[in-house]
Amino acid sequence: MLRSISERKRNFYPLDKHFKRQIKEILGFKPKRYAVYQLALIHKSAASRFSKQNDIHNERLEFLGDAILDSVIAEHLYESYPGRDEGFLTQMRSKIVNRETLRNVALTMGLDKLIVSNLTSDTHIGLYGDALEALIGAIYLDKGYGKVKRFITQKLLQKHINLNKLIETETDFKSRIIEWGQKNRKDINFTSQEQVSARTKKPVFVSHLLVFDEIVGMGMGKSKKEAEQNASKQAIQMLGL
Amino acid sequence: MLRSISERKRNFYPLDKHFKRQIKEILGFKPKRYAVYQLALIHKSAASRFSKQNDIHNERLEFLGDAILDSVIAEHLYESYPGRDEGFLTQMRSKIVNRETLRNVALTMGLDKLIVSNLTSDTHIGLYGDALEALIGAIYLDKGYGKVKRFITQKLLQKHINLNKLIETETDFKSRIIEWGQKNRKDINFTSQEQVSARTKKPVFVSHLLVFDEIVGMGMGKSKKEAEQNASKQAIQMLGL
Repeated sequence: MLRSISERKRNFYPLDKHFKRQIKEILGFKPKRYAVYQLALIHKSAASRFSKQNDIHNERLEFLGDAILDSVIAEHLYESYPGRDEGFLTQMRSKIVNRETLRNVALTMGLDKLIVSNLTSDTHIGLYGDALEALIGAIYLDKGYGKVKRFITQKLLQKHINLNKLIETETDFKSRIIEWGQKNRKDINFTSQEQVSARTKKPVFVSHLLVFDEIVGMGMGKSKKEAEQNASKQAIQMLGL
Repeated sequence: MLRSISERKRNFYPLDKHFKRQIKEILGFKPKRYAVYQLALIHKSAASRFSKQNDIHNERLEFLGDAILDSVIAEHLYESYPGRDEGFLTQMRSKIVNRETLRNVALTMGLDKLIVSNLTSDTHIGLYGDALEALIGAIYLDKGYGKVKRFITQKLLQKHINLNKLIETETDFKSRIIEWGQKNRKDINFTSQEQVSARTKKPVFVSHLLVFDEIVGMGMGKSKKEAEQNASKQAIQMLGL
């Protein structure tokens, strides 16, 4: 079995002054151990450089960092909006933690310069955002929850996120799919209907999104709007947009 | 604006010895402030007892606790399985954090005796598990991340979860939907096809689940099996099973 990264002392690649300085600048503090940050910056495409098993890369740290990020954002929203319900909090979080935001934050931080990868951003859109999540996982393992919370609050929320503006931004899955349809001359239709949930006995909306006559996404929600958003979200995934 | 629960000193309902003793027993420690635990145990159905705005209930804390729980479980799995990839970790987490497990843990803890609700479990299956998540949010706010991590590890993981057994358990969305079909004489079919993702240029599987000839769920995955599981998961949601 692999040794846990938390216990690991050996680095994955030689540490030079350049790496040490840049990572310290990005983090805003001096790491205890560098190995975990190196691992956070190794994309899967470069894994074969480090081991025959191709298992030295940042996907596990990304899994951890994604969860830590979600919970720090959850707390931030919980404390910032004492008068708003959990539907609002959930929506706000998904507006904050999305691929575009994470990518932008990663680029502004200069994370792209440190990533070890055989890809470029053009071929893999999640590359930088995923590395940022992995970095969050690394900070947590190296320095604990309090430190990673400060990092996320200062580097991500305060610098990059305008909460008041986000409140007014519509989650835009539906707009995105409609725009895609217009651009590519695809006929897009939604069919929505109200049902009574078999489980909760409450009314729910079910929405189907059709491209020409083929269903490419379906979703549910407490309102027609929410159901259409969910159907659009799935369609975007299914169509690889 | 409502005052943040973290700053709140006043209780939501009178504290009696019984409540104090029971909550202490459930938590395994003495709370600093009781109000946040009271709030965690108020179901939405009873909100009107506490305010005209119906906003005194545990849904916001459930949002917070759900995220905290996810990240504690993520770390536990990350450390427990250094040799396994993020797909395995993700799957294991969803096997641990599901409605049935949370409900069982809540009931074994005796949380049901403290819940303030106008419902019974029969009419709302998430009642107890949701309260457990809210309780986790409350512990975090009252005592911090280290304490809630210990609570989850000791009360949930060590007592209730057999990780080795879970590894062998199949995520059973597909079996569940097929069983439902057999019981209710519904003709269930899967159609799956391999595609190349427009975004990542990698092969993906897309699966549709049909009840008679109607699509009730669709899903994607790196394998046919994963795509069918995802389609089944959506179908279970869409059909309210």
